[in-house]
Amino acid sequence: MEGPMVSSAPAETAEADRVPAGQSPERVGMFFDAVLAIAITLLVLEIKRPEGEEARHLLRFMADNWSGFLDYFIAFSMLWVVWRSHHKLLDRVERLRGTAMFLHMPLLLFAAFLPYPTGLLGTDDTQPVAITFFAGTWAVIVFLEALVAVSVRRMGLLRDEHNSREVAAEEPTLFLVSGYFALTAVAAWWVPDIEWAWLATPILVRAGDRLGRVWARRR
Amino acid sequence: MEGPMVSSAPAETAEADRVPAGQSPERVGMFFDAVLAIAITLLVLEIKRPEGEEARHLLRFMADNWSGFLDYFIAFSMLWVVWRSHHKLLDRVERLRGTAMFLHMPLLLFAAFLPYPTGLLGTDDTQPVAITFFAGTWAVIVFLEALVAVSVRRMGLLRDEHNSREVAAEEPTLFLVSGYFALTAVAAWWVPDIEWAWLATPILVRAGDRLGRVWARRR
Amino acid sequence: MEGPMVSSAPAETAEADRVPAGQSPERVGMFFDAVLAIAITLLVLEIKRPEGEEARHLLRFMADNWSGFLDYFIAFSMLWVVWRSHHKLLDRVERLRGTAMFLHMPLLLFAAFLPYPTGLLGTDDTQPVAITFFAGTWAVIVFLEALVAVSVRRMGLLRDEHNSREVAAEEPTLFLVSGYFALTAVAAWWVPDIEWAWLATPILVRAGDRLGRVWARRR
Amino acid sequence: MEGPMVSSAPAETAEADRVPAGQSPERVGMFFDAVLAIAITLLVLEIKRPEGEEARHLLRFMADNWSGFLDYFIAFSMLWVVWRSHHKLLDRVERLRGTAMFLHMPLLLFAAFLPYPTGLLGTDDTQPVAITFFAGTWAVIVFLEALVAVSVRRMGLLRDEHNSREVAAEEPTLFLVSGYFALTAVAAWWVPDIEWAWLATPILVRAGDRLGRVWARRR
Repeated sequence: MEGPMVSSAPAETAEADRVPAGQSPERVGMFFDAVLAIAITLLVLEIKRPEGEEARHLLRFMADNWSGFLDYFIAFSMLWVVWRSHHKLLDRVERLRGTAMFLHMPLLLFAAFLPYPTGLLGTDDTQPVAITFFAGTWAVIVFLEALVAVSVRRMGLLRDEHNSREVAAEEPTLFLVSGYFALTAVAAWWVPDIEWAWLATPILVRAGDRLGRVWARRR
Repeated sequence: MEGPMVSSAPAETAEADRVPAGQSPERVGMFFDAVLAIAITLLVLEIKRPEGEEARHLLRFMADNWSGFLDYFIAFSMLWVVWRSHHKLLDRVERLRGTAMFLHMPLLLFAAFLPYPTGLLGTDDTQPVAITFFAGTWAVIVFLEALVAVSVRRMGLLRDEHNSREVAAEEPTLFLVSGYFALTAVAAWWVPDIEWAWLATPILVRAGDRLGRVWARRR
Repeated sequence: MEGPMVSSAPAETAEADRVPAGQSPERVGMFFDAVLAIAITLLVLEIKRPEGEEARHLLRFMADNWSGFLDYFIAFSMLWVVWRSHHKLLDRVERLRGTAMFLHMPLLLFAAFLPYPTGLLGTDDTQPVAITFFAGTWAVIVFLEALVAVSVRRMGLLRDEHNSREVAAEEPTLFLVSGYFALTAVAAWWVPDIEWAWLATPILVRAGDRLGRVWARRR
Repeated sequence: MEGPMVSSAPAETAEADRVPAGQSPERVGMFFDAVLAIAITLLVLEIKRPEGEEARHLLRFMADNWSGFLDYFIAFSMLWVVWRSHHKLLDRVERLRGTAMFLHMPLLLFAAFLPYPTGLLGTDDTQPVAITFFAGTWAVIVFLEALVAVSVRRMGLLRDEHNSREVAAEEPTLFLVSGYFALTAVAAWWVPDIEWAWLATPILVRAGDRLGRVWARRR
């Protein structure tokens, strides 16, 4: 039974040397997609549903609980941004190993955790604890995504120099967004309607992108 | 550590130029599949289940709640049509970028949202609000799918001229179905049993396909 | 913008002709995997959990509700068989179209529906309605899987003659298992402990495989 | 209709002989990823949520239920280790058949079952039954993963001799971790705070890796 294993062509061994077992970015992408897709779809289960009497006055119920729809929109958009950013990054990567691979564990741990703080926000979004918890989880997710980008670039796992420059140009956006969410997590204890500040994220993304491109040219 | 990045073969760079990072349709398809698969499977959780006393008279319970099974059937079939349409489209696409990529965000946002209006419908399908909400969500999903098709074609992201003509021929169906659901969303406030009208969707799909082919020939 | 679409290499068009858009078995397999994976994982949510007082006497609670674990085991094993059978089939298929593609819709509709009858069985497995519902859903799923195999073979969508013979040899098993479950669905109204009969499925699979190989040789 | 099936090129048949239908590791990896991704994401639903009065004092509620977060962390980390180990293994595998394929059924059955014992632990983690159930499920999952590795290696399904040695070097870790969890499952009846012992798993993984490498050199 051991026979066919020895007869490996040298070409195959050469290929195996280039991307060793367990470092192929494809399957990491697949697992990442699956976890994010589930987390993003579980968000809908966190929107409050009418119970008992409330079902008779659906319009009023939805008017009273509109903030649940806003939370769904914000959490969904943010997860989309994280997915897009990871999609771009992995397309540039040749293989994943060491820190760059390991960082995916806490990244997915917090991404999969997201429905919990989103649900908490839906229960009572006037409490700073709920808002801090939600914004804090986001700050951590985006920060870990930024760390993945940095480690992938520093470890020389990207396809070429061009891709390295592109990734470097995208890092400021991630650090900026992460810091912004960390800031709102703290501000929540003094500003009650801080939720609205999250809607400014697209502006931050734009600003970060421009900043990143300027920095990239200077290097 | 930066060494191996510079030694990229020119052939690889050429390939990277053709489909830049983050524009590969494969991973978009994978994420789309995952989100739709989860949304389509969560639908079953929206069918009412017997509680307490009801469990003793299962047959009567199911006879009383048969509309939940109809809703499941309709929502499942529609999501299948959306998935099939997207499968066909992506097979024709070379890469995705700009508007064509961005439109996937609201498309998936509304597709993942579907279990909510389906659940609402299950709670009380005699109220126009529930029906409007369900039909409205559908109208938006199919409309966004149509917009993806149009933008992909207009941005020249398809593989060749043949595929471009084929996509153009499929667009009328999507706009027709979207408009039809928008119509029932409004009609729900006057016609109580409008749900049945949704079962006519296959006829609309057929009509749209024929219309699309006729138009395609004339161009 | 329409420029680059015309410049398609003839080689690419040739390949596109062989497997037209929307007929690639890969993405069907991906969607099938995702739906089945979710259905198979949702089954665990149907196992009864201790509530209130019951939590204090976990051992007794689990002894009282052991049939929930049996149901999980049966439903999981069956879905695994369906997945394996589909995995084998799709590996033999070149492309999917017409009836062979369309049949995946009801197949996935019933597979995704499975958590409902499994949950019903968990609520009260002494009622024939629950058992009939569960066994009936299974009979339909396996019957549709058999229909997919037959249509794929009859439509000449398989890779070659060898694969065609192999698929033909696997069909009897699927029809046998489907018929057996339909039988237990009816028998449930007279035999109360019919659930145990499902454990005989592996024997049926073996018998069907042998029967199929004998028939295949005679043709 | 049977015509095109006969005209298969000999090259294709040769390739089909190497990896027969239903033995391609790619789709097994895809299904494995999907099931694990769902199981890992369902874990978050097992963390207790504030109800009624508790929602007003979120900070106190979370302080009282912090062990739910610890359970989430432990279960998530363990599933990540199982996924990583399987990712590595499958990258070395050429094809899967017989026992090596069949063992994936109980492996996924127990992996998909995990949210149940995690939920049980969340309900009442002072009872040895809950801890035994959780640790026992883990011992079985990791033991089955080890069996998959052993059977894949013994059946000669790996790409070459180098990969065979690598897999052999990874087996001790799996057996060690499995045995450790089985031990805590038993110890739970005498040691109440045995949960903390699970946090030592990373040390075990390190020790197992070193042991495996030493053994591999001696052979």
